[in-house]
Amino acid sequence: MSNSKTLKGIIAYPITPFDAEEKVDIALFKKLTDRLVASGSHGIAPLGSTGVLPYLNDDEKEAVIEAAIDVVAGRVPVVAGVSNLTTERTIHHARFAEKAGAAAVMIIPMSYWKLTDDEIFTHYHKVAEAISIPMMAYNNPATGGIDMSPALLKRLLEIPNVTMIKESTGDVQRMHYLRRVLGEEVAFFNGSNPLALAALSAGAAGWCTAAPNLIPEFNHSLYNAVLANDLAGARDAFDRQSELLTFITANGLPRTIAAGLEILGVEGGHLRSPLAPLGKADFERLRGLL
Amino acid sequence: MSNSKTLKGIIAYPITPFDAEEKVDIALFKKLTDRLVASGSHGIAPLGSTGVLPYLNDDEKEAVIEAAIDVVAGRVPVVAGVSNLTTERTIHHARFAEKAGAAAVMIIPMSYWKLTDDEIFTHYHKVAEAISIPMMAYNNPATGGIDMSPALLKRLLEIPNVTMIKESTGDVQRMHYLRRVLGEEVAFFNGSNPLALAALSAGAAGWCTAAPNLIPEFNHSLYNAVLANDLAGARDAFDRQSELLTFITANGLPRTIAAGLEILGVEGGHLRSPLAPLGKADFERLRGLL
Amino acid sequence: MSNSKTLKGIIAYPITPFDAEEKVDIALFKKLTDRLVASGSHGIAPLGSTGVLPYLNDDEKEAVIEAAIDVVAGRVPVVAGVSNLTTERTIHHARFAEKAGAAAVMIIPMSYWKLTDDEIFTHYHKVAEAISIPMMAYNNPATGGIDMSPALLKRLLEIPNVTMIKESTGDVQRMHYLRRVLGEEVAFFNGSNPLALAALSAGAAGWCTAAPNLIPEFNHSLYNAVLANDLAGARDAFDRQSELLTFITANGLPRTIAAGLEILGVEGGHLRSPLAPLGKADFERLRGLL
Amino acid sequence: MSNSKTLKGIIAYPITPFDAEEKVDIALFKKLTDRLVASGSHGIAPLGSTGVLPYLNDDEKEAVIEAAIDVVAGRVPVVAGVSNLTTERTIHHARFAEKAGAAAVMIIPMSYWKLTDDEIFTHYHKVAEAISIPMMAYNNPATGGIDMSPALLKRLLEIPNVTMIKESTGDVQRMHYLRRVLGEEVAFFNGSNPLALAALSAGAAGWCTAAPNLIPEFNHSLYNAVLANDLAGARDAFDRQSELLTFITANGLPRTIAAGLEILGVEGGHLRSPLAPLGKADFERLRGLL
Repeated sequence: MSNSKTLKGIIAYPITPFDAEEKVDIALFKKLTDRLVASGSHGIAPLGSTGVLPYLNDDEKEAVIEAAIDVVAGRVPVVAGVSNLTTERTIHHARFAEKAGAAAVMIIPMSYWKLTDDEIFTHYHKVAEAISIPMMAYNNPATGGIDMSPALLKRLLEIPNVTMIKESTGDVQRMHYLRRVLGEEVAFFNGSNPLALAALSAGAAGWCTAAPNLIPEFNHSLYNAVLANDLAGARDAFDRQSELLTFITANGLPRTIAAGLEILGVEGGHLRSPLAPLGKADFERLRGLL
Repeated sequence: MSNSKTLKGIIAYPITPFDAEEKVDIALFKKLTDRLVASGSHGIAPLGSTGVLPYLNDDEKEAVIEAAIDVVAGRVPVVAGVSNLTTERTIHHARFAEKAGAAAVMIIPMSYWKLTDDEIFTHYHKVAEAISIPMMAYNNPATGGIDMSPALLKRLLEIPNVTMIKESTGDVQRMHYLRRVLGEEVAFFNGSNPLALAALSAGAAGWCTAAPNLIPEFNHSLYNAVLANDLAGARDAFDRQSELLTFITANGLPRTIAAGLEILGVEGGHLRSPLAPLGKADFERLRGLL
Repeated sequence: MSNSKTLKGIIAYPITPFDAEEKVDIALFKKLTDRLVASGSHGIAPLGSTGVLPYLNDDEKEAVIEAAIDVVAGRVPVVAGVSNLTTERTIHHARFAEKAGAAAVMIIPMSYWKLTDDEIFTHYHKVAEAISIPMMAYNNPATGGIDMSPALLKRLLEIPNVTMIKESTGDVQRMHYLRRVLGEEVAFFNGSNPLALAALSAGAAGWCTAAPNLIPEFNHSLYNAVLANDLAGARDAFDRQSELLTFITANGLPRTIAAGLEILGVEGGHLRSPLAPLGKADFERLRGLL
Repeated sequence: MSNSKTLKGIIAYPITPFDAEEKVDIALFKKLTDRLVASGSHGIAPLGSTGVLPYLNDDEKEAVIEAAIDVVAGRVPVVAGVSNLTTERTIHHARFAEKAGAAAVMIIPMSYWKLTDDEIFTHYHKVAEAISIPMMAYNNPATGGIDMSPALLKRLLEIPNVTMIKESTGDVQRMHYLRRVLGEEVAFFNGSNPLALAALSAGAAGWCTAAPNLIPEFNHSLYNAVLANDLAGARDAFDRQSELLTFITANGLPRTIAAGLEILGVEGGHLRSPLAPLGKADFERLRGLL
């Protein structure tokens, strides 16, 4: 049940909450993750960008992955984020995730020095050789600092394990291109909230998003309308959430999801410095949107 | 019948053909325009970017507008491009178009020096005062060199005549924003071919495009599927034309439409220098796409 | 004396002033141009970007060129701007300028549709064949909309008449590249005011600028310090004018030069719409800088 | 002797070499660092971008800092890179560096999530409170992913320890701005190799660079010419190295310095994956440049 074939629909990102001393709060993480499953998410993706993966040390990352798999308990697939600057650490965490029971791993090529296409390909290839679960190649220049071209994404799909692509550039033409050159066999996922309608219209298999932490019913109504081939319904569903989606994306998901949970009366924990809570004016604007 | 209320659907751009001496060929222009009406276009927009408006002198512009209105003969609305670097010339051509019988004028703020928002607002305002037909504000930084912000577009709609917006940035978020802040009263049109599915999904009233010169049946099948609330049908229709739409946009519409007409066996005339015919390799690629 | 070999140093751009009805004011243009020669400019470049070339009709352009050559009267070389969207009009104005006595012509590849490298090369080539005075190829993507790569600039120099390059991208690495690949035979000119120190340090033959309308003595002291191999003196001279140079460039030269002349008590005429006078706050800031 | 007041001139970046198993090779690091002191560097900056700081774990970072201070042995100041995504780890490494004897620390605000200006300011502030040696604020959007505006850099200087700024955007206007608003009291350093002439001409106190690993005599001759107020000499010195500087920057300093050392017959060790050796064609091009 929890293999990548079944991965589609609303893939929800839990945040990684911290306590007042900025230590990871595993108990709270489990509660927040369970809430996402309970509200109907079709998959759970811990340690995504929303889960502030790069701000955690190795032990913390492992604890979060274990906690996610434990609390999800097979109800839906878990896609674990295992991205790392070095290939060696990426392999380490990918192996850990596989052993722990993840259905798939999600990998963004983190950069400090810009990587060449060959370096990125080799990076994915070495990780792929070390594990046997599927990999989702994740493109998000706004966070990772590297923009993988459609041609490179296509090349990554030559690696047998790489069966899914997540596009977060916010450029809908990339999605049309992927669909055109990859055919319907390869699943592509939307990772850009403001593009949800355009991406699902374009044939995306799913939408990886932190929004279900705040408005799961809206996210699902959009997805369900698309499944039902109801364009007008999808447009209406999207129009009701588009301003919020744009806001949370523009202001940083860890900050806005934490603030949104607070507004909803759900405990969301603290952030880890240097990330700081949403400013007062933005907090009030978010309250208005919710 | 030919007022802007009825303006929606597929608004087709005729090219402006030249003879071997690079003079405007009005007879051929009429033939090509008639062909667009005959294939079902819901509106005709001479002297758009595809019509190489800025490469013509004043007399040529007037001859083209008159020819368009003459050959269309009231069958569908004519939206005349009257953009000019100076306000004085824009007013001159807008008045000419109104007198000649255009249903509306389309205006992009051409730039050499970047204009301030106030300068752009005043430019539209002065033109609006000089005519009584509706105006379509056209945003296309790739050609005009100015990117009008959504906030400025919203402000332009305070001018009574400005009742339509055409967005060609290729950013679908702009369209969602326009729909959100403008409501359903203001018609927004898509001017970016590769965004046709996303824009119509987002609620665009129409699609201004040069593509009906080459593939009118595909363009109409997409539009009709959207009208019928058939998302899967729209996606299929779009997928069949998306590579061509991307190609003709990326390689310059005057060049690619002229080449495409030649491939289809339709006389398309010459280009005016410095614009030159599509290169051999691109020509063959286009033949493959058609 | 007035050939391009002698072209170097401070090449000053006169503005094109308009009267209250927005007609070109030739008498005032002559006064303003004479003032530039009197303050020591080594060359005069009418109908540059500062001279709002693209906002003038053909007759006005010819009148301005004639007036410039008339008032300069051989004291320094005149480099006439003759850029136009079409090749035919560019040739027309280049011939006119040669006949009128210009030492050289300056040409920026104006774009509406982005031109291919081959189209740009052919454009320059056809103009070159039609005249026998030297040409300055002018690169300024911020106004013209096309960024000619260093490789294309190098290729343009294969055309015998093209003996000068003016770079206005604001990227000093381009200047180092030009010097490296072109050697010392080809003169390159700086067209970006905020880069004046960097460009002259890099070996630019001259600086094409509108600043001498306002602060000729500062411009010349910078140039003279560089000539004298006095780096500290050049830095001091530049530091005294750099904030003004940045301001006038960022806010549009036609607006800021007109405002600056008014502040200095020199009649500068009106602008042509849609260009409007500098706003009040900016006007006061400019007064502070002067 | 080794305080920040004396920090000026050529500040050299050692690479962090790895053995065949991709472990840090401390013995080789010491040799390479000693070589930089011996060739005349005025300061040594371990764990800069060239030193692949973010690819090392905590123990490795500490070993590199200790090794640098040990081998430099007080001959010149050591500026230790201690940047980290989290504030807590940055403080940890900054304290370590101070205790180990570093003259100053260099900090770039690493980003995954874009930080707000307030978050960046607080980040620096908290680190500053934890140490008493000077801090160099380092701006390099190409690697760190955040572009600190000149206004933010100015604000950072309100923090008493922040006494130096290193600008690596490649925009010479930033340097002129810094000099203008900061006055001569605050030292700004150039971190963009292709801008070395422009930055030193603009008054930079020094040049932080990996180039002395390959061409120390050229780097020093440029700096010395500037000190001697000899602009023509500085230009000549720069022209002899500018192509190499552009090449090593464009192709990634860890890759190109390692390759360059190999070409020079100096052992440079391995890179850590995913970073891979320079490709064959680029290697040969680099050989030609050396």
